[in-house]
Amino acid sequence: MSGTSLDGVDAALVDIEGSEFETKVKLVKFNTYEMPKEIKAEIKRACSVEESSVELICSLNFKLGYLFSKAVQHICEEAKVSVEKIDFVASHGQTIYHIPKGKGSIIPSTLQIGEPSVIAYENNLKVISNFRTMDMAAGGEGAPLVPYSEYILYGGRGETIAFQNIGGIGNVTVIPAKRNIDEIFAFDTGPGNMIIDEVCSRLFNVSYDKNGDIAKTGNINEGMLKNLMDHPYLKKTPPKTTGREDFGEDFVKNLLEKFKDIKPEDIVKTVTAYTAFSIVDSYKKFVLPKTKLDKVLLAGGGTHNKVLIQLIKDGLKGIDVFTQDEIGYSSDAKEAIAFAILGNETLNKKTSNVAAATGAKRNVILGNISLPPFGGS
Amino acid sequence: MSGTSLDGVDAALVDIEGSEFETKVKLVKFNTYEMPKEIKAEIKRACSVEESSVELICSLNFKLGYLFSKAVQHICEEAKVSVEKIDFVASHGQTIYHIPKGKGSIIPSTLQIGEPSVIAYENNLKVISNFRTMDMAAGGEGAPLVPYSEYILYGGRGETIAFQNIGGIGNVTVIPAKRNIDEIFAFDTGPGNMIIDEVCSRLFNVSYDKNGDIAKTGNINEGMLKNLMDHPYLKKTPPKTTGREDFGEDFVKNLLEKFKDIKPEDIVKTVTAYTAFSIVDSYKKFVLPKTKLDKVLLAGGGTHNKVLIQLIKDGLKGIDVFTQDEIGYSSDAKEAIAFAILGNETLNKKTSNVAAATGAKRNVILGNISLPPFGGS
Repeated sequence: MSGTSLDGVDAALVDIEGSEFETKVKLVKFNTYEMPKEIKAEIKRACSVEESSVELICSLNFKLGYLFSKAVQHICEEAKVSVEKIDFVASHGQTIYHIPKGKGSIIPSTLQIGEPSVIAYENNLKVISNFRTMDMAAGGEGAPLVPYSEYILYGGRGETIAFQNIGGIGNVTVIPAKRNIDEIFAFDTGPGNMIIDEVCSRLFNVSYDKNGDIAKTGNINEGMLKNLMDHPYLKKTPPKTTGREDFGEDFVKNLLEKFKDIKPEDIVKTVTAYTAFSIVDSYKKFVLPKTKLDKVLLAGGGTHNKVLIQLIKDGLKGIDVFTQDEIGYSSDAKEAIAFAILGNETLNKKTSNVAAATGAKRNVILGNISLPPFGGS
Repeated sequence: MSGTSLDGVDAALVDIEGSEFETKVKLVKFNTYEMPKEIKAEIKRACSVEESSVELICSLNFKLGYLFSKAVQHICEEAKVSVEKIDFVASHGQTIYHIPKGKGSIIPSTLQIGEPSVIAYENNLKVISNFRTMDMAAGGEGAPLVPYSEYILYGGRGETIAFQNIGGIGNVTVIPAKRNIDEIFAFDTGPGNMIIDEVCSRLFNVSYDKNGDIAKTGNINEGMLKNLMDHPYLKKTPPKTTGREDFGEDFVKNLLEKFKDIKPEDIVKTVTAYTAFSIVDSYKKFVLPKTKLDKVLLAGGGTHNKVLIQLIKDGLKGIDVFTQDEIGYSSDAKEAIAFAILGNETLNKKTSNVAAATGAKRNVILGNISLPPFGGS
């Protein structure tokens, strides 16, 4: 998969057995392969209403298919596992647009690209892809989809746990202490690394704030922070989802124009604080009034940003907050593993959206199956 | 399915048994449902490099999913067959872009929309869709795909038959007298109804030239015809495919600007003649030097245009030319039935492209399978 942060193609090779609560999953190998610059630039254009075109999207869908095929081959090589031994590929693809609510003639819909036929052909493998569309067909927002895997792996074990992912976008899943899928709730908290990365790219010509080193040297600008906290997304009641269309390039461009007199490092610190507070705020408004939390587990690329993590921990005083790495799990691999679990459920004809998290009318079997094109199982 | 001519959604309800040469297929009901004006306008925008956007394509993909779902429901109602009795839906979708050859950073690819998850959800049915991508992944041009069904239904019966389809685009398949898939050859001959329809819409405000009545009143303008016959597509050696990007709105707009002094009915007659001669010419250049033809069978919406058909018959003197309707088959239903046959082969894990027709490196299993989302077979 490739997330909204566009920092690379994540590939997880997993051993998986059983299904639903009997699922046993073991990470064999994980890696993130750098996204070639030209492709990253094309994805950004494809995500923009103004710059995208049918020609670009048509071509990029196939181009990403080839890129994801290579990721499959590379992760197998690294693990010294022959590609022929793979049972299936679960491919999330690259989201290029997501419309959780309709507006005017535009109806609720979502668009992930990375042609599964290409992945299937290049490896003669079965591919399950396009997981989000069926949830939207069922009236859901098509996101978040990670809750299902958290539920079957960690649910019903006597602790209420908030799983906070910090990718391009931030999202939280609250897994109940008891095994009851309807008690799960989840939503996108707001920006993850998306604003920080775009600001770093524009002001410091680096793709992200490594360890939070830039933020460390700056100060929060209260006026700018207040302006950011007024964003309408933070006030919306869950279920809710967001993406590049809310906090992407256009948003940052406008922000930097508006606050062009502030020192670059202060801007980085302020958007880092904004990202942290949008998470903390979401918990105070929408999680803690409903349930106590035994634990908060942070995952995703954002967990490497020390300033961001410290600000979250400070904001949630009194609750145990850990990064997944601190408790011995791979934080980076989490989402890719989640989609392997979803693909496995599809092949077992099991539903794997969490209607309580996405707002769908019912739980449904997700994804499309592309068969190995030369035959075989 | 909905073709490049955008004149409606074709739905064929068929009884199908067996696979490959054992396939028995019976048309139960066929209808073409009018394409709502707003959706037709959105498709045209989505097909245009200048006017398309990721937002439009994302939304339209779902919108067409709902439209195709309704077509499934309507054809079942008309046939008094319960939707629950349907084993599967084979959905071609709507082609919005097709790049048979790459150019610069744009790679060979194709894009059909009409979200299969929506069709599957609205009817709790299995859906096979996205047939063209796997052929392109295999190095083919993704078209034509109809040859396979013609081959298994009519092939190897002692006659060499050319199947000429006249939809938005014209395409021919030559089926050999002997049962040998590698002897099939097929290619897009050039425009079908696409130029005629667009000219009628711009000059007469009607969506097509019913029965050829407008062309009947006009005369061929030799200068304009010569200019049209010089189009580079006609000179290309097969395998070759074309579409709206070559003969669509932009093409007609430029044509009408260039020849604005010619009488409207003469323009209609001239583009009708061009369409006929592009077919006749293709046979003379690329078919008849290779094989004798026992029969030419014309199908598709263009067969209702009497002027067009007469011009083709005149141009192919000495060969028996019939419309499918003249020999008792439904010409309109042909393509929709062909995709039902392809869907059936996919479920039987059989390959169904004709590499000799598409230029693919090998024959492959086509399409993605979306499972019935609430479970069931």
